[in-house]
Amino acid sequence: MTDIRTQALACREASRAIAALDSTAKAALLEAMAEQLLADEAAILAANVQDLDNARAAGIGNAMLDRLMLNPARITGIADALREVAGLPDPVGQKTRSEVRPNGIVVERVRVPLGVIAMIYEARPNVTADAAALCIKAGNGVILRGGKEAIASNQAIAASLHTAMARFGVPAAALTIVADLRREAMLELLQLTDIVDLAIPRGGEGLIRFVAEHARVPVIKHYKGVCHLFVDAVADTAKALDLLIDGKCSRPSACNAIETLLVHHDIAAAFLPQAAEALRARGVELRGCPASRAIVADLLPATEADWDAEYLDLILAVRVVDDLQAAIAHIQCHTSDHTEVIVTEDAANAETFVAALRSAVVMVNASSRFSDGGQLGLGAEIGISTTRLHSYGPMGLEALTVERFVVRGEGQVRT
Amino acid sequence: MTDIRTQALACREASRAIAALDSTAKAALLEAMAEQLLADEAAILAANVQDLDNARAAGIGNAMLDRLMLNPARITGIADALREVAGLPDPVGQKTRSEVRPNGIVVERVRVPLGVIAMIYEARPNVTADAAALCIKAGNGVILRGGKEAIASNQAIAASLHTAMARFGVPAAALTIVADLRREAMLELLQLTDIVDLAIPRGGEGLIRFVAEHARVPVIKHYKGVCHLFVDAVADTAKALDLLIDGKCSRPSACNAIETLLVHHDIAAAFLPQAAEALRARGVELRGCPASRAIVADLLPATEADWDAEYLDLILAVRVVDDLQAAIAHIQCHTSDHTEVIVTEDAANAETFVAALRSAVVMVNASSRFSDGGQLGLGAEIGISTTRLHSYGPMGLEALTVERFVVRGEGQVRT
Repeated sequence: MTDIRTQALACREASRAIAALDSTAKAALLEAMAEQLLADEAAILAANVQDLDNARAAGIGNAMLDRLMLNPARITGIADALREVAGLPDPVGQKTRSEVRPNGIVVERVRVPLGVIAMIYEARPNVTADAAALCIKAGNGVILRGGKEAIASNQAIAASLHTAMARFGVPAAALTIVADLRREAMLELLQLTDIVDLAIPRGGEGLIRFVAEHARVPVIKHYKGVCHLFVDAVADTAKALDLLIDGKCSRPSACNAIETLLVHHDIAAAFLPQAAEALRARGVELRGCPASRAIVADLLPATEADWDAEYLDLILAVRVVDDLQAAIAHIQCHTSDHTEVIVTEDAANAETFVAALRSAVVMVNASSRFSDGGQLGLGAEIGISTTRLHSYGPMGLEALTVERFVVRGEGQVRT
Repeated sequence: MTDIRTQALACREASRAIAALDSTAKAALLEAMAEQLLADEAAILAANVQDLDNARAAGIGNAMLDRLMLNPARITGIADALREVAGLPDPVGQKTRSEVRPNGIVVERVRVPLGVIAMIYEARPNVTADAAALCIKAGNGVILRGGKEAIASNQAIAASLHTAMARFGVPAAALTIVADLRREAMLELLQLTDIVDLAIPRGGEGLIRFVAEHARVPVIKHYKGVCHLFVDAVADTAKALDLLIDGKCSRPSACNAIETLLVHHDIAAAFLPQAAEALRARGVELRGCPASRAIVADLLPATEADWDAEYLDLILAVRVVDDLQAAIAHIQCHTSDHTEVIVTEDAANAETFVAALRSAVVMVNASSRFSDGGQLGLGAEIGISTTRLHSYGPMGLEALTVERFVVRGEGQVRT
């Protein structure tokens, strides 16, 4: 028996202690975890300095260093996030349905924890606390396999959380940090179908594809967000412009940013010039189809690859389409199943768009940037799923549970 | 591009035609499929004779021949099942939640089809029609890979269903029968992560393990049902006896049959002798622990393997346990996550049992044989899941859909 399997088995065993806590105890535990994190700030920052030194010595770039870096404000932010999760409604034990069958048995559907969740992620140490909080709130054990750049920070955060857990009689193994960061060890973790109920990879597309391609345990993930915004012929152009600017510019590195603008032919001459001006003023590079280039001077030509690109940057692909059906056809062909937006004043067109597309989130006259667990009212987000199973779109606490059947009778038999 | 990939792509394309049908049209389509099956009875029976002849020539046993065999009554049964599915409520388009966020956007959760479902099953031709009906009712395309013994019957049934589908403008590819029955072709089907949204294997444990171990597409399955019945100290022994006999004897080959009887020490002397007498009168072989053998003469000794056995036969493992906690510990150790039953007049004990066990279905004073989609009110059953994700326990139409987000605003932006 290897180390990873032993650790995972211990997590499964310890997950029962989490599952046995009632809602009040879990909320108190998460509050205690937040307090403990603040109390352990010095130790966590010291560990983080160690990670930062190693990262600098390894020549890691500034963007990555910034993601890795903790400071008192960021630790306060992590503690605040734990408190927010503490205050969310507990999905476990919720009765989603109850029915009395003709023979008198009462059939209830009740939410229960998934069991053991493995998170595979990259170098943001706040994910360690966030993911632990969400999994624990939903009654699960959690195995965290973060990036090697953040290992000291992750272990210091976990040690702090373990201190709080111990006060509630929850074994440390319920929140397990994988210390063996070799790929072989991750592969082994992903084969443990008898122990791990779900793996959630978060990070770059390369990491996610590696997990999805090698896991035998169930995986829920999204590779990328190629979000489309379609401006219909009967769009309110002021709304369209606001939604476009918010979608493209408010956080271009987010997976819910707009990557492709589709414009109805009939409104293109009116809308595209002002859109181009506003976007260029914000530093956005535009890559257009021939029809759009005939309307806006100096557009770079879009190539076929642009229709599938997740730029995560201030770049936008632009295409003029003949009509609503052509917009739908373009999206059906290039969708990442993440988020699509229509801007229209025509309710029938909106419904056609919603019905025709199979993406996880479809927006009518609202920004793609709302495609986020917090914005959509889930309270917090463990990830986004474009896996069309279990959970589709932003995943909150509920996605870390499953409904089962509880049946109560008075001795009824079938035959 | 191989044949399987081409077929699966065609199914995915055709699945859009199914998804575009409204509830009324889908119900009418399923009614038409039922009628067409009856109209094509002669052709289906002729194909079935061909399968039966081949099976006999291959020396296949009587039990399998019976499962393979169709006759007018069975075809009527299949048509009736299609009509039942036609009459079920349509899960697609159901709004499960709606919330107005503080910024005024309206966030709805709406059920949508999964997309393309692959069913892998063995030699019951009725599964071909049942699975097709359920998948289509839930708006999905379906790829059916049945056993080679039933291939002529399956193709004849599908040809009949295609006739009805054509009248509704639904391409035949929406219901695809895999004609290439080599294992390699099945393996290829199970790798099509960009086309197949879910694979559901049904059949023997060997087939299911093969699918689960080789699939890259998501798989929902159950391997076996080692269902426990625990008779608490404060059980009503008359109820306990009824539930035990129904659970063990009403259909021993079903996965929801009782395989292990656990009896509280305090009631064992009163209950076990009458239970043993009643079961033996029905031809049940009992295999007991030492304590049970001290109470009932001539019990065969149970070995460790008996606690994990799914007999699917008139055999029952019997164990006396010290108390409720010992019963729970036994089940936690040997559960197949399928169905567990407690017989007790003590409500607190019942709740302890329900809370401690993580099985898909937990029954209080009700027969394990109710662990079935029809009995639990799902209307029909596509399978049973002990995969703790998406759906846990008997799966009906709803399990063939997923909730997504539809957001309607008036131009709201995030920043």
